[in-house]
Amino acid sequence: MPASAELGPVPDAIARAYDPSRFRADGHRLIDQLADHLAACTSATDDGLPVIPWLAPADMLPRWPADFADQPADDLVDTLTATAAGSIRLHHPRYLGHQVPPPVPGAALADAAAALLNNGMAVYEMGAVATGQELAVVAWMARVLGMPDTAGGLLTSGGSVGNLTALLAARQAAAGFDAWTDGADAGPPLAVLVAATAHYSIARAVRVLGWGAGGAVEVAVDERYRMRADDLTRAHAAAVAAGRRPIAVVASAGSTATGAYDPLPAIADFCAAHGLWLHVDGAHGASAALSAQHRHLVDGIERADSVVWDAHKLLAMPALCTAVLYKDVTRSYQAFAQEASYLFAAEREWWNLGLRTVECTKRMMGTILYASLRAYGVGFFRAYVERVFALGQAFAARVAAAPDFELAASPDANIVVFRYRPEPELGGAALDELQAVIRRRCLEDGRWYFLSTRLGGALWLRTALMNPLTGVRELDGVLDAIRSAAAAVQR
Amino acid sequence: MPASAELGPVPDAIARAYDPSRFRADGHRLIDQLADHLAACTSATDDGLPVIPWLAPADMLPRWPADFADQPADDLVDTLTATAAGSIRLHHPRYLGHQVPPPVPGAALADAAAALLNNGMAVYEMGAVATGQELAVVAWMARVLGMPDTAGGLLTSGGSVGNLTALLAARQAAAGFDAWTDGADAGPPLAVLVAATAHYSIARAVRVLGWGAGGAVEVAVDERYRMRADDLTRAHAAAVAAGRRPIAVVASAGSTATGAYDPLPAIADFCAAHGLWLHVDGAHGASAALSAQHRHLVDGIERADSVVWDAHKLLAMPALCTAVLYKDVTRSYQAFAQEASYLFAAEREWWNLGLRTVECTKRMMGTILYASLRAYGVGFFRAYVERVFALGQAFAARVAAAPDFELAASPDANIVVFRYRPEPELGGAALDELQAVIRRRCLEDGRWYFLSTRLGGALWLRTALMNPLTGVRELDGVLDAIRSAAAAVQR
Repeated sequence: MPASAELGPVPDAIARAYDPSRFRADGHRLIDQLADHLAACTSATDDGLPVIPWLAPADMLPRWPADFADQPADDLVDTLTATAAGSIRLHHPRYLGHQVPPPVPGAALADAAAALLNNGMAVYEMGAVATGQELAVVAWMARVLGMPDTAGGLLTSGGSVGNLTALLAARQAAAGFDAWTDGADAGPPLAVLVAATAHYSIARAVRVLGWGAGGAVEVAVDERYRMRADDLTRAHAAAVAAGRRPIAVVASAGSTATGAYDPLPAIADFCAAHGLWLHVDGAHGASAALSAQHRHLVDGIERADSVVWDAHKLLAMPALCTAVLYKDVTRSYQAFAQEASYLFAAEREWWNLGLRTVECTKRMMGTILYASLRAYGVGFFRAYVERVFALGQAFAARVAAAPDFELAASPDANIVVFRYRPEPELGGAALDELQAVIRRRCLEDGRWYFLSTRLGGALWLRTALMNPLTGVRELDGVLDAIRSAAAAVQR
Repeated sequence: MPASAELGPVPDAIARAYDPSRFRADGHRLIDQLADHLAACTSATDDGLPVIPWLAPADMLPRWPADFADQPADDLVDTLTATAAGSIRLHHPRYLGHQVPPPVPGAALADAAAALLNNGMAVYEMGAVATGQELAVVAWMARVLGMPDTAGGLLTSGGSVGNLTALLAARQAAAGFDAWTDGADAGPPLAVLVAATAHYSIARAVRVLGWGAGGAVEVAVDERYRMRADDLTRAHAAAVAAGRRPIAVVASAGSTATGAYDPLPAIADFCAAHGLWLHVDGAHGASAALSAQHRHLVDGIERADSVVWDAHKLLAMPALCTAVLYKDVTRSYQAFAQEASYLFAAEREWWNLGLRTVECTKRMMGTILYASLRAYGVGFFRAYVERVFALGQAFAARVAAAPDFELAASPDANIVVFRYRPEPELGGAALDELQAVIRRRCLEDGRWYFLSTRLGGALWLRTALMNPLTGVRELDGVLDAIRSAAAAVQR
């Protein structure tokens, strides 16, 4: 045997790093730190704890230098505790920010288990239990949406990749030629019909697929920023006139900026009449289907050919956990027709989920949602959706009732777009500038976190009410904070 | 104020789910369960604990039913403990399987912190600390590879998405037309030159981008499955003759099936001479750069225009954590030129990483690697790489020395492809069938976990030695187990 056959004992650095007793000790310390952090967040009621400890980008870099030494330097739990201290606090009731939820804490524990087990899931045997759990949650999600028995799908890492995956399936099903094998130039340029209010990942996916900017043909929206189904005929004709073959309509449920739900039944009728694939981007809002009170918003979603639904939005899971659901699950295989010999013995192996995702190795996302559904019950998820939607209604009502505030549109969901307009005659660039200054001032102050967005050419303030622990105190408080910020600016 | 302004107190189901004391109690219980699981895995030395508790797909589904009730059903920690019990055990020394590592356990703890904090990272303010940490680890990775000061990049969810991202940048930089805006049909069909030994995500990305099967033009490999740089001229001419514009060479460091490293200096010379983008898929093997002993394998990688490097392979991180590195970081902006008004005030904001990824919301991947580099030191990661490469050498030497085994090729890294050939006259379909039966038998038996792959039309056995706790006992033991499996079959 040659010299290279020699193999020494496991080096000390490795034995120490993999020592289960070290994991146990660090783990217990970390749990206490995170529980303390969580308790501080959830019980924060005044100005004592910032929701966002703001640091400008240039000031942040020196805090986390890239000077990694050969030997261990900082304690793991200390680094993570410092990370928590500097991070934006999603569990703080004053977190009124992006469409990222404060995860239900047990899901973070499930995440640790998923990370340690690290079953890779590209093929069944590398994540058999996780595959079983994923197929269970996907089946449940399809059922919640009222999709037919032929439905099915998979989980993938995020709504953007999910939308890309669904458009790949649409391309293969509806283009009329085999773009996967023969390329984009084997047929006419393709297009999807979509409102400008859709998430930017749709426009991005269209460009990734090589359809260019013209591949997303705009459909008009109404005064509440919902797609106008009666504009689809015009948009379809415009695409054809531009030399394109429309293959799909992409509807939002709800849209990103305002949370508006496009009218799915009318859109589904149009798709049926014209042989178009219907993709519903329900990343944010498909969860409304859990609630009898809000189900009407997604009526028609069961007719979609594909749906994207982020569990890391209104199912309160940590990022990322996105379901791509198909009315006819066999469509999901056609999106990725080629084969890796070292992985797949044959196509159409329903148990090898890697045949149907952009991803190869994949996290055990299904495990996290599965364990959470068992531990909290569907009732918790329904209560979560109803609570944050109620927050949206309650906040919109306050904005509408306040003489110095203006509401962009009555909200369908938990996203409210509004602005501070102390005098009716204030408008144009000055009004925009006021919102920008308020927003910047509150961000840097750190006691409140909300957003801004452009809508109809103007700048508005925006909040996605993702934290179910937010209450009346915060809804009133943020309006006062905005008034104070404006007053400080105007002084 | 209308009735919808009314907002009740936080419902009980939500208060209970978000209760920090419940998180603390569940967390401590889970840490003990996971530590016990880890200890059982790392100390497994005999047949007592299976590495893969095999269940056929059809038998797995009923174990994880989709019958989620409205009320809480199963305890969170119980579900996760059962998940661990049924999962493949990557920390078991007999895990000789896929290119997914047993994560260094502290990284799983960091994962829990990242999941609970859940800072979304599409824009700086939603993950300011995580952005600082990500930029630190990315800068460190570029430095480890010897890339120039202009280099930079970002983290993304997995090597497949990473390769797609890099090819988007290549398309924008090298196509000679603006495919992002004007579409694929604004110029000639494009092509990349790549060996058939590259990961299937390259062929997949080419098809996603609309270049079709012909968009990946094959370059020949040598007897050790490395790209033959002297075949690039022919491949380039073949692409041109097929009416395509070659824009890039995709080199593997190392390749998936055998871990072979393509000859980067010669490939870089060819790219420089022909104005081609050089993308190096170092998902598996870029980590060799950490070791003075193995650095030579990736010499030339510093000349690549883009590199993909998975920290969730040979940096022992849990999936997913992939770096996309660019020689000129400004290239990374050009891949995604459009803008979401609600997110980005301007382009080229280096602190808003969402401008440069397929993803919008992104996990705090950088936090996990950052905390691990601090806690374990670079020396640990070097020791990890050197250990698993030494395992590859030691196992290959054993295979080569065994008269009844055959080695496909001398390994560059920690991947060994081999087969059982008890009689030299055994060949063809019978030899293939023997490997298939051995592999299936051992998989279902569960005491050992290794793979099979097709190479040169024949079926071989394959192992990726990812567990640094694997030792001589396992390297010898698996050969005996294969002999026993074959004997049982032949009886």
